[in-house]
Amino acid sequence: MSPFELHPDRFFDSDTVIRAYAREIFDNIKSLPIISPHGHVDPGIFVDNKPFENPSQLFITPDHYLFRMLYSQGIPMEALGIPSINGTKVEKDPRKIWKLFADNYYLFLGTPSGIWLNHEFSVVFGIKEKLNGVNADKIYDEINEKLNSPEYLPRRLFEKFKIEVLSTTDASTDSLDNHKKIKESGWNGRVIPCFRPDAVTDLSNSSWKSNIELLGRVCGYEISSFKKYVQALEERRSFFKNLGCTSTDHGVFSPYTHELSISEAEKIFQKGLKGESNNEDAELFTAHMLMEMARMSIEDGLVMQIHPGSYRNHNPVIFANYGTDKGADIPMHAEFTFNLKELLNKYGNHPDFTAIVFTLDESTYSRELAPLAGHYPAMKLGPSWWFHDSIEGMTRFRQMVTETAGFYNTVGFNDDTRAFVSIPARHDLARRIDSNFLAGLVARHIISIDEAIKIAEDLTYNLVKKTYKL
Amino acid sequence: MSPFELHPDRFFDSDTVIRAYAREIFDNIKSLPIISPHGHVDPGIFVDNKPFENPSQLFITPDHYLFRMLYSQGIPMEALGIPSINGTKVEKDPRKIWKLFADNYYLFLGTPSGIWLNHEFSVVFGIKEKLNGVNADKIYDEINEKLNSPEYLPRRLFEKFKIEVLSTTDASTDSLDNHKKIKESGWNGRVIPCFRPDAVTDLSNSSWKSNIELLGRVCGYEISSFKKYVQALEERRSFFKNLGCTSTDHGVFSPYTHELSISEAEKIFQKGLKGESNNEDAELFTAHMLMEMARMSIEDGLVMQIHPGSYRNHNPVIFANYGTDKGADIPMHAEFTFNLKELLNKYGNHPDFTAIVFTLDESTYSRELAPLAGHYPAMKLGPSWWFHDSIEGMTRFRQMVTETAGFYNTVGFNDDTRAFVSIPARHDLARRIDSNFLAGLVARHIISIDEAIKIAEDLTYNLVKKTYKL
Amino acid sequence: MSPFELHPDRFFDSDTVIRAYAREIFDNIKSLPIISPHGHVDPGIFVDNKPFENPSQLFITPDHYLFRMLYSQGIPMEALGIPSINGTKVEKDPRKIWKLFADNYYLFLGTPSGIWLNHEFSVVFGIKEKLNGVNADKIYDEINEKLNSPEYLPRRLFEKFKIEVLSTTDASTDSLDNHKKIKESGWNGRVIPCFRPDAVTDLSNSSWKSNIELLGRVCGYEISSFKKYVQALEERRSFFKNLGCTSTDHGVFSPYTHELSISEAEKIFQKGLKGESNNEDAELFTAHMLMEMARMSIEDGLVMQIHPGSYRNHNPVIFANYGTDKGADIPMHAEFTFNLKELLNKYGNHPDFTAIVFTLDESTYSRELAPLAGHYPAMKLGPSWWFHDSIEGMTRFRQMVTETAGFYNTVGFNDDTRAFVSIPARHDLARRIDSNFLAGLVARHIISIDEAIKIAEDLTYNLVKKTYKL
Repeated sequence: MSPFELHPDRFFDSDTVIRAYAREIFDNIKSLPIISPHGHVDPGIFVDNKPFENPSQLFITPDHYLFRMLYSQGIPMEALGIPSINGTKVEKDPRKIWKLFADNYYLFLGTPSGIWLNHEFSVVFGIKEKLNGVNADKIYDEINEKLNSPEYLPRRLFEKFKIEVLSTTDASTDSLDNHKKIKESGWNGRVIPCFRPDAVTDLSNSSWKSNIELLGRVCGYEISSFKKYVQALEERRSFFKNLGCTSTDHGVFSPYTHELSISEAEKIFQKGLKGESNNEDAELFTAHMLMEMARMSIEDGLVMQIHPGSYRNHNPVIFANYGTDKGADIPMHAEFTFNLKELLNKYGNHPDFTAIVFTLDESTYSRELAPLAGHYPAMKLGPSWWFHDSIEGMTRFRQMVTETAGFYNTVGFNDDTRAFVSIPARHDLARRIDSNFLAGLVARHIISIDEAIKIAEDLTYNLVKKTYKL
Repeated sequence: MSPFELHPDRFFDSDTVIRAYAREIFDNIKSLPIISPHGHVDPGIFVDNKPFENPSQLFITPDHYLFRMLYSQGIPMEALGIPSINGTKVEKDPRKIWKLFADNYYLFLGTPSGIWLNHEFSVVFGIKEKLNGVNADKIYDEINEKLNSPEYLPRRLFEKFKIEVLSTTDASTDSLDNHKKIKESGWNGRVIPCFRPDAVTDLSNSSWKSNIELLGRVCGYEISSFKKYVQALEERRSFFKNLGCTSTDHGVFSPYTHELSISEAEKIFQKGLKGESNNEDAELFTAHMLMEMARMSIEDGLVMQIHPGSYRNHNPVIFANYGTDKGADIPMHAEFTFNLKELLNKYGNHPDFTAIVFTLDESTYSRELAPLAGHYPAMKLGPSWWFHDSIEGMTRFRQMVTETAGFYNTVGFNDDTRAFVSIPARHDLARRIDSNFLAGLVARHIISIDEAIKIAEDLTYNLVKKTYKL
Repeated sequence: MSPFELHPDRFFDSDTVIRAYAREIFDNIKSLPIISPHGHVDPGIFVDNKPFENPSQLFITPDHYLFRMLYSQGIPMEALGIPSINGTKVEKDPRKIWKLFADNYYLFLGTPSGIWLNHEFSVVFGIKEKLNGVNADKIYDEINEKLNSPEYLPRRLFEKFKIEVLSTTDASTDSLDNHKKIKESGWNGRVIPCFRPDAVTDLSNSSWKSNIELLGRVCGYEISSFKKYVQALEERRSFFKNLGCTSTDHGVFSPYTHELSISEAEKIFQKGLKGESNNEDAELFTAHMLMEMARMSIEDGLVMQIHPGSYRNHNPVIFANYGTDKGADIPMHAEFTFNLKELLNKYGNHPDFTAIVFTLDESTYSRELAPLAGHYPAMKLGPSWWFHDSIEGMTRFRQMVTETAGFYNTVGFNDDTRAFVSIPARHDLARRIDSNFLAGLVARHIISIDEAIKIAEDLTYNLVKKTYKL
């Protein structure tokens, strides 16, 4: 079996001129610390700092990028050990799960998941062969052994990955106990929360009312009015901020923004409390809460992130058996020119406001997002998101955004991951693609190599830190 | 005049690394048999096995790809000999038509039509010069002479083209006599039908009622109720299946799917019989029939194809004078996340169901189709269709689909053509573009050359055969 | 400091094969005269032929491409000397404005603005250093001195730029005095008007009624009925045509076309005169006027241009303080298959009609526009517009349009600029990108080098002249 090594020029164009520039640019940024301003890593792993359980638990069962692909090819969720929420029996033997994964590893050819996995296996775990059905057991053993060594404890990996800041994403009602414990532990890894209030701002969420009750318990008073509700959110933002939070995040169905009168907002809020709100109420309420959140951002300085356009839990069979985040979230058509108008008109010219907007609808890059970000001072463009966090996706993002918005209305890379050990792989890929894109500009004499290197450093490090106020 | 030869490296990137890999990959697939699982060739040509009439009849008058381009540049349809349906006089002299075509052959520069024609002229007919106004007559004579030789009879070409299976597309009421005769003739070319019931499922079709009557005559009973109608369709599917059919095809305005109650369906059906149905009825009926067809597919195993999003007969002047399929079908905005939800929710997790979805709206590739196919086991993505069956179109398809859906949720190539002699040209082009795309991945060290060759073989042959159950 | 020279191979692919072909093609077209069939240069500069005021006045304050980017990065409009319309104090010192611009010149890296500016500085003004905060004053002086020399007077530049025709864009009520004066001056520069009646066809324009009154004054009679209004427009078109006009232009919110009855049109017109029209009226009125304009085009031979899909003045703060055309026009989703149907159905088959359609929504290129232009004889595709007038934008246009519409249903390049001295830069860029695109086809053996050169000449010169009847 041939040795399994990642090529030093991987992902660069094979054209010799571009490749040489890409190498030069990448050499300048490859060792910069990782700033991870948006992601979903469980902070608890740094509190306990216990070994990861086993390779299947680490790689497969929590990663919807992986098991959705296997599921799409007819492999049952239960065979992959995805925890069921309704008593469906699922595979418990991590070796069997691993073998099934290994047998089907070829499905990830040409996908970012495949690239990240290869990186994790090769660079993080020093595996010398490409995973397949034959060597599955052997590689399982190799990884498992390493997981139980001190070098592979979460905090040690955090340091080895050169992570300067890692932001988690946390419900508005979260106690942030893990964040507190990390702070109090004396360990100097910087792990900060991000304020994500979707569960209490989305009236269409079937748990909304109980989430409001929880918010009330956390705040210590009953949330009986819209005014109290706003007060509670302001208090929670302040609480988050005190624990290092610099940003909020809003995962909304649509980016529609619209300000209601206080009485209208109150009326819808009361309907919600009575369980009488409808879809239109929910849409208006979310639209209004985006306006409220922008107002609060100007007051408390938290950077606002908007992640719209995912139809969550599209497959009710999977939702009923396995719950949320199971690979069944499907993007949909998005619109920003009309939807963001109220928010940008009211707050978009404000020097103290930053709204970072993401999209799953690439047709909006050049049509709406780049022109908006290329005009409104407050608006910045988040990197290519989720399904587009990939070689072609990142390349299209730069190709469709740069000429209108420039580089400096974008904010660098977000890994946006639950998979902690994939973080260096994801940043490596993003840095390579930015290097390669910039190299293409140099090779065509659009910018100079010195300018390209400066831009690369800004995209990788300076711009992220500055925009997210880290 | 310089000799007119197709370059062996045509359509490959000029980058030397990519080109070398592309050659290597293509060498492994170029001689594989042709599987043509979806197309519009007239099966009658293999029954009679008579010589094709003349070059203009063979190439121009039946091919709306060609004459729409000539028409767009102000050349009247009648001058091209397009048969009129209302008595308009049209050119009858095939040489005059050929000369007009040759004079305007430059219009096809940079288009797939131009590429296919060059291939047909050079490879299939051994023409040594590029067609132009000057050599038009000479080339007409050369082709005409060959058409009348045994080597150019339809069955002989079928064999020379190495076609392993050719699927036609046939109305649900078709007698399939041609298919029967081919079977009975002793010739072992495999020509199979595909069940396309649009004429009896589309209530907005002005001939719908007479189509239902025809369906009744074919089945031997009056179709007076929705229940009888469903029974008739099930019988016809069974009839098709017995003649080798493995798939159905649904050319729908919108991919909207929605299940009606039996009484609702019956009510709309009765309105249709009385000529009282409106646009909304038609939309609901099509939506319901897609659900019914999926149910039947699970029962009888026929693979379902959905071709939505073409505004047929956009130009009433052309429609009135020349009828359907005259180059005036225009794509429109498509939506799948919401529209396919009911179908996928009910049947998309079923192991015995396959729905192959096509689109004319490329903005849905990365936004909706790849995420859906990358999750639901039943859903696969048809290749880049019609206007996108081209170098750039196929490249964009792979670039926008692969990273989310992988290669194995796609189904290889469909030539989808009425133009029998263009089949090898179209498969040659598709194989070259897949080879070149894969070569680009190898050159950037994303996959290995061995992996690329395996994928190329699967896309060209194995995956098509397997998905279409051939 | 390194010398600042534009590379002779700039914007060409670095691949040696493509680059060599691109050079060869570009060499054949680079010196062709400039045909500028659509733009916004003030014709007054050629009447007076006075020196341009100063570098800031010439480059920055009138160019919304530039100051919107600076504004997006938090630089106040007033600091850039953008004239306010409400008394806001703005910077008056052109050197201070220039310095601010120079300090932030890096924001234009990778943008077409940056490319055009570099060309203007280097080629038009012979500047030897790239602009930055340090050399800002020196470069200001160099440009300023040249502006006051006879070689840099507007007419002299027009000749040096080798402009064969320059079309301005003019309100229907414009006296065209400047055009008359140019004609009468004896100078033989060909500067012609374009008829743009938006101000009198858009009922939603708050000045519509006063515009109608102005139209009446210009025509010498009161416009009290729709019939009179149509008569006035016909007269104005005739007046424009007599001064060399060959085209009309329609900047519409939506490309919706729909013919009203005379009485419906009259009714809406009267509502407009009374200030009682609503949004729906305005939409219908514009839809009807596009039909009327097409009818007039067939009668008087003026080529019709349709520029839809810009949400003008999206930012009310900027609009209130600085007025229109201040970088706050944002594209939106567009639709053509349904919207243009009536117009194309009625007039699209007419041999004497030409409608050139533009879009800001690139998702419509391959989906709707190329198929429509590839069928209807009257419809042609304008080049990639505004935000897409860029390297990547022009490349995407050719990639997404050519395979369906061919080259000959497009109409060459439009610079569409207010910035007179940027004209050669814009045409240089467009010619290079077309050369490079064609070189890519030659390198992949899709077309021959001779064919590529012929197409390049047609796109640059012959096709523009012919389509715009120049």
